[in-house]
Amino acid sequence: MISGVIFRVAAVAVLHSAGVAFAQTPPLAPREVPAKTIPVPNTVSPELQQIIAQPLRTAWNTPPTTPEGWKELAESIRAAAAPNVEAMRARLKVTVEPGTMAGVKIYTVTPERVLPENRDRVLVQIHGGCYVLNPAEAALPEAMLISAIGGYRVIAVDYRMPPEAYFPAALDDAMSVYKDVIAKTDPKRVGLIGTSAGGALVLEMGLRAKQLNLPLPGAIASGTPMSDSTKTGDTFYTNAMLDNVLVSTEGFCDAAAAFYAKGHDLKDPLISPIYGDMSGFPPTILTSGTRDLLLSNTVRVHRKLRNLGIDSFLQVYEGQSHAQYGRDDRIPEVREAFSEIGTFMNSHLKK
Amino acid sequence: MISGVIFRVAAVAVLHSAGVAFAQTPPLAPREVPAKTIPVPNTVSPELQQIIAQPLRTAWNTPPTTPEGWKELAESIRAAAAPNVEAMRARLKVTVEPGTMAGVKIYTVTPERVLPENRDRVLVQIHGGCYVLNPAEAALPEAMLISAIGGYRVIAVDYRMPPEAYFPAALDDAMSVYKDVIAKTDPKRVGLIGTSAGGALVLEMGLRAKQLNLPLPGAIASGTPMSDSTKTGDTFYTNAMLDNVLVSTEGFCDAAAAFYAKGHDLKDPLISPIYGDMSGFPPTILTSGTRDLLLSNTVRVHRKLRNLGIDSFLQVYEGQSHAQYGRDDRIPEVREAFSEIGTFMNSHLKK
Repeated sequence: MISGVIFRVAAVAVLHSAGVAFAQTPPLAPREVPAKTIPVPNTVSPELQQIIAQPLRTAWNTPPTTPEGWKELAESIRAAAAPNVEAMRARLKVTVEPGTMAGVKIYTVTPERVLPENRDRVLVQIHGGCYVLNPAEAALPEAMLISAIGGYRVIAVDYRMPPEAYFPAALDDAMSVYKDVIAKTDPKRVGLIGTSAGGALVLEMGLRAKQLNLPLPGAIASGTPMSDSTKTGDTFYTNAMLDNVLVSTEGFCDAAAAFYAKGHDLKDPLISPIYGDMSGFPPTILTSGTRDLLLSNTVRVHRKLRNLGIDSFLQVYEGQSHAQYGRDDRIPEVREAFSEIGTFMNSHLKK
Repeated sequence: MISGVIFRVAAVAVLHSAGVAFAQTPPLAPREVPAKTIPVPNTVSPELQQIIAQPLRTAWNTPPTTPEGWKELAESIRAAAAPNVEAMRARLKVTVEPGTMAGVKIYTVTPERVLPENRDRVLVQIHGGCYVLNPAEAALPEAMLISAIGGYRVIAVDYRMPPEAYFPAALDDAMSVYKDVIAKTDPKRVGLIGTSAGGALVLEMGLRAKQLNLPLPGAIASGTPMSDSTKTGDTFYTNAMLDNVLVSTEGFCDAAAAFYAKGHDLKDPLISPIYGDMSGFPPTILTSGTRDLLLSNTVRVHRKLRNLGIDSFLQVYEGQSHAQYGRDDRIPEVREAFSEIGTFMNSHLKK
């Protein structure tokens, strides 16, 4: 299917996209963009318009400065989310069963009806929250969405977070669960799904599985991944102060990633997977939005995978800031995004 | 492959993405984004960095105001491009043969080696330039790139433009050539490719073929299409003054589209194809960049096609403004983009 000529050209392209940054000597002139007033687009559903119209996240530029401060923030967000998570669970008609697997806290999410072709398949979901936020039930919305919309059984991993445990605890916990799952289920029937830090973690799991000579999963869904925590990526600048969720690299998410890293090199591919060797990765679907601070770090992963010849599908949503594609099941574009992810998993996981 | 549950959800999603704009009553608060200094990203090749570093297009906000002014602009751009086009032709080792087909001026572009699987296939290329620019050899770069990189024989259509001929002359000429081509070649072996106005025209050709009960082509490559000439699409605002090619909806391209339309409704799907019924379209690849003023109008087409169940692939390039993916064959990301397009065509056109 891929011809000699085409393949040769693709191989050339790989060289420049291997995650290397290129020095600028001398530095090139930046673009001066004037202040702008940007209307809420009328090209998205009324439900999504309300989300886009929300002001910049409160206190985006005053992240906690102490471990206790981070823990308090995580707890307050969790407590605020809890009733919404339960309401979403009820609407989506999924059951949620807390438990442990390989010593790691998990939730098993089961849809009203597991699709027949998914009976022997399972998804492992790794939540987002900049490696520091969304413990316990706050981890669940994405797992519930893909369970209900895709008709999958999902294991949601409630991994350890700072200040209890720093890098690589989150990845270690995710890998412990993965190893347990693939001991019982053909890895080709196992899909990984995550958003933001979770979107990075599912890529890091692929890299770690390669290091450990473990079989890779059958497919990966990486949503707006924190694929580069070194403040590198064009939309960190172009979408700054426009994305109403992450707002800016000077905001809480980069501070949280540094808190998780605890001095570890942020360019380690197990924190910034864009710098890892993704050859051999399974089919991977990537999701982002046009206002997403991590749009660049989503498309960089997409290009990297494609240049390795990997089946990778990109979906980008009009007007959405970071991770808004998973915001609420009542938003049509959220159902649309998870329908794509479910379809992708369905096409690529072994029957 | 697509299950009942997933399909039901996808069908719901279709309703809101059918190209309808949603009123805001009352209007929602816009986002006030401060002035920003945006560095040239180091996440792209040095060659592309030079393109990104270029200042905003000269005279972007003083489009011609008379038919003669447009013609002079088109001629001056053509004359300036001519030596570069010839140099690119020599580097890419393609031959270019001018001719006519069904009374329309064309060029036949032939690569050094037509790939064996492409022997009975042909691509029809429709150039960009806001419906008004890039006559004669200025139409050729995209045709030469896909010919050389994909190993295809390409018919480049040098359609009539204002002030000689207004809407729908460009589309009529493109359709005349298409009809002639499919009289000799199985339509499933024919691919359409175009960028910007050409990206819109290849979609308009699909819509027009449906109206005329003509068979559709086997695949379409629509690059950063002018899919909505009504100044609708979020990145018209978010990427304004950042995209150094189109710069702003207040710039020359929207003025040129209005000049082409000559009073015709800009919401006509044959000018703004996002408003057309794309059901039954063949596999379609879409290309854009993170700084592209038409990123929204690219992803809106992608979502529209996907919600109709059509095999559609999106590629978005880091840091690129409008149509820079076809700027110069010596830019690695340009070879990468056309390699993707060639691979996509190769996968979907009938052997």
